Amino acid sequence: MPDCLFCEIISGNVPSHKVYENDKILAFLDIGPVSRGHTLIIPKEHAPDLNAGSCESAMDLMRVVHHIAPSIIVALGAHGYNLGMNHGACAGQIVFHTHLHFMPRYEGIPRSFEKQYPSQQELVEVAAIIRKEIGVS
Amino acid sequence: MPDCLFCEIISGNVPSHKVYENDKILAFLDIGPVSRGHTLIIPKEHAPDLNAGSCESAMDLMRVVHHIAPSIIVALGAHGYNLGMNHGACAGQIVFHTHLHFMPRYEGIPRSFEKQYPSQQELVEVAAIIRKEIGVS
Repeated sequence: MPDCLFCEIISGNVPSHKVYENDKILAFLDIGPVSRGHTLIIPKEHAPDLNAGSCESAMDLMRVVHHIAPSIIVALGAHGYNLGMNHGACAGQIVFHTHLHFMPRYEGIPRSFEKQYPSQQELVEVAAIIRKEIGVS
Repeated sequence: MPDCLFCEIISGNVPSHKVYENDKILAFLDIGPVSRGHTLIIPKEHAPDLNAGSCESAMDLMRVVHHIAPSIIVALGAHGYNLGMNHGACAGQIVFHTHLHFMPRYEGIPRSFEKQYPSQQELVEVAAIIRKEIGVS
């Protein structure tokens, strides 16, 4: 879809810190994470929101959550996670390409939804640690 | 699972305001909703959290979201929704039976995560409106 940031990331025209990919789904680090390892999980097929896309696409998101969550937790020493999705502008959606937020949580660190802006180097390192644990080269 | 509130709701030993049910999933109103129509979507098979359950069970949650979300939006005059899941105590999980929060959102009403406590009558009415739209008797 022209002018869609996430489609540009999928195509590689815009760089991202990839943590996982299959033929249907891409997962990459949020550059404004609310916690270390905050990951966006998106269908490769463009749809502005979950209900505009197929049921299979929605289910594929959760298949990937189930697959990568244990590895992210081990990789980062996390103790749990929040999932979140904003569907529609009134729900806080900003990029109109379906995306599920995966936010690792850590004992002793208050659960915040405030964005942080780590360095590119930090993001590179976090993505590498996660990819290694998942087994993505 | 003994002593699991949501298993008791599934079995019918504890009443709930059901909005949808199939052989794998139950959806019912949160009694402390953050928005009108706040619904909990749970697998009938007990698992304390998403990753303790099967991948199929996780995917079934999203199948139901995709199925019932449009009806809830129409039924309540909502304009979008948030999805949320708290996985682990550090992520805010309180009931250790996997559950996905579906929170309708409305233009002009600020997005809040503060619980409200509507009357039983209000919950009965909201559930009935939603069931009628979904086509559940």
